Amino acid sequence: MLKFSIEAKSGKARRAILKTAHGDIRTPAFMPVGTAATVKAMTPDMVLNCGADIILGNTYHLMLRPTAELIAKMGGLHKFMNWSKPILTDSGGFQVMSLSSLRKISEEGVKFKSHIDGSAHLLTPERSMEIQYLLGSDITMIFDECPSFPITHAKAKKSMELSLRWAERSKKSFIKRDGYGLFAIIQGSVYEDLRKISATELHDIGFDGYAIGGLAVGEGHKLMVDTLKFTMPYLQENKPHYLMGVGKPIDIVAAVKEGIDMFDCVIPTRSGRNGQAFTSSGTVNIRNEKFKDDNKPLDENCSCYSCKNFSRAYLNHLFKAKEILGSILLTNHNIHYYQNLMHEIREQISADNFDNFALEFMAKYS
Amino acid sequence: MLKFSIEAKSGKARRAILKTAHGDIRTPAFMPVGTAATVKAMTPDMVLNCGADIILGNTYHLMLRPTAELIAKMGGLHKFMNWSKPILTDSGGFQVMSLSSLRKISEEGVKFKSHIDGSAHLLTPERSMEIQYLLGSDITMIFDECPSFPITHAKAKKSMELSLRWAERSKKSFIKRDGYGLFAIIQGSVYEDLRKISATELHDIGFDGYAIGGLAVGEGHKLMVDTLKFTMPYLQENKPHYLMGVGKPIDIVAAVKEGIDMFDCVIPTRSGRNGQAFTSSGTVNIRNEKFKDDNKPLDENCSCYSCKNFSRAYLNHLFKAKEILGSILLTNHNIHYYQNLMHEIREQISADNFDNFALEFMAKYS
Repeated sequence: MLKFSIEAKSGKARRAILKTAHGDIRTPAFMPVGTAATVKAMTPDMVLNCGADIILGNTYHLMLRPTAELIAKMGGLHKFMNWSKPILTDSGGFQVMSLSSLRKISEEGVKFKSHIDGSAHLLTPERSMEIQYLLGSDITMIFDECPSFPITHAKAKKSMELSLRWAERSKKSFIKRDGYGLFAIIQGSVYEDLRKISATELHDIGFDGYAIGGLAVGEGHKLMVDTLKFTMPYLQENKPHYLMGVGKPIDIVAAVKEGIDMFDCVIPTRSGRNGQAFTSSGTVNIRNEKFKDDNKPLDENCSCYSCKNFSRAYLNHLFKAKEILGSILLTNHNIHYYQNLMHEIREQISADNFDNFALEFMAKYS
Repeated sequence: MLKFSIEAKSGKARRAILKTAHGDIRTPAFMPVGTAATVKAMTPDMVLNCGADIILGNTYHLMLRPTAELIAKMGGLHKFMNWSKPILTDSGGFQVMSLSSLRKISEEGVKFKSHIDGSAHLLTPERSMEIQYLLGSDITMIFDECPSFPITHAKAKKSMELSLRWAERSKKSFIKRDGYGLFAIIQGSVYEDLRKISATELHDIGFDGYAIGGLAVGEGHKLMVDTLKFTMPYLQENKPHYLMGVGKPIDIVAAVKEGIDMFDCVIPTRSGRNGQAFTSSGTVNIRNEKFKDDNKPLDENCSCYSCKNFSRAYLNHLFKAKEILGSILLTNHNIHYYQNLMHEIREQISADNFDNFALEFMAKYS
């Protein structure tokens, strides 16, 4: 129930528009992560001014606090956090594995204890769909099991098969509405045969978009790209392709080259709070002593609020003094950098110059 | 070297314009505190949008980190922190007493160790003037000794006399420039005879403005107002009057009633980071459980960004989840509340209705 229109292609890279109930998403798109109903250290206006068309919310965090029911009562996640553009929510599957304790996985779903207060919860495909419906997500993700990495072929197969059964249950309980979509998640770790089965069977069920899950879990850039190379041919071309949890700028450029349309990652926000910035000259840590009397902007080629108004010396001071404004300004810059990169990627696709751009980009920043 | 034009009076309250090198200050004015070259949790744009004409910087903090010399090298405090409106800096006298360790006071000045790294420093009237000059402050404060409270008459007298000698030295080393001014600080604790001597002798030396120091140190609202009542008659009427470190909204209204024109205080910013908000219905702590599903804005009568765009339920969630955005939004609201209060005070003075307004305000919020 989502309209996806490819506007231009360059090699395997595609530029498109994905239409949702809360507006259009220009792809390739990067979704800043708004875990607990806030993109950390940013006002929604700042996120908007950076050029983001869509943000991501985390089902796991929101179901525990303040709860999906409370957010629904307050008018849904968009209204609650004052973000009127599209929102994608993950299914809780990944975070329940990485954050909760005392997990017990069964055919039914995952029993776990909250990392906040130790309370017991059960997350099933049906409950995940219900939570994402209560939140009002434009794009709902199916509930899947996220296997660890590295994992044996046998275990990856068993997990992928469980995820397939959960995908069917997710689709069954997803309430169809115009402008709202359900994305599948292809699993299978780094095994081509498993990725093929997962992709093929998910396409048989039929979804509005297809995500690649189980990457960005420590496998490294090369194995990630290799996995994409053998997985992407099994994806339906006229649907959006989303690489979950990725990544660094070079990962994004490499993945767009393989036909990926959507990304999310905590890197720009988390790095921003830690003093690390992405710039046209590569990554820099603003805490570095060499910046203490450097009157130049963080990135001389950047037009963001942080770069137009403040010096490296000032940012260095803010981080030394542990001032909140340091986190605000660097997060703002990093999100702007990522959105600007996506803009550049889209332009290069339109100019049918993406593969050259990608080669140069990888050479410069690898 | 500052022009101060009284535009309206209502009882002892005055409305005026104080002209500085970086623009006009509408008084009565409240100065948000920007201790370490940032009003905590705010961008300078946000402070500006709240209606502030002037902010305060702390000499003690800035001399230690990043140092006045570095700020001067970066083009001065206004440029460093991207605040183009007026800045008042305190002299370091108060913070050296409250924050540093191993203080040793002599006729020359105060030797102390930094609370940041234990390094040894000497602050004298001459050095304080030099630091504030390096920062580029529109309004420089004389270097004084801030006595503790309570204090005996004998000790308060001795301290006040030392501060008078330091005031003379401050004036001598202050570099006069058009649009830049030097304010004296009247001491004498809660003793009328000492306040009279301090005020009279400081007026004999001659300054661009007169501050009341040594209040807001735990003496309470009544003793503060009583001290103002017997001190204010000794102040030159055609100069600005600044009550340092004050305070709560009721303190401000009561002090304007006695003829005070300028205020600074960390209350709106510190409270904001702690979840406490000033509203038209009094102070509220947004962490309170009763707000968790309250869809109303923080203050229904407020037009700030925080109140126009977010609910109490959302703010309550942000504070529970320890999200930076909570501090941003509540600080923004509180600064807006204070600036709005000053606007209302000025309008009530223009309408010659200030004493009635003050009575009603005190009755409602005391």
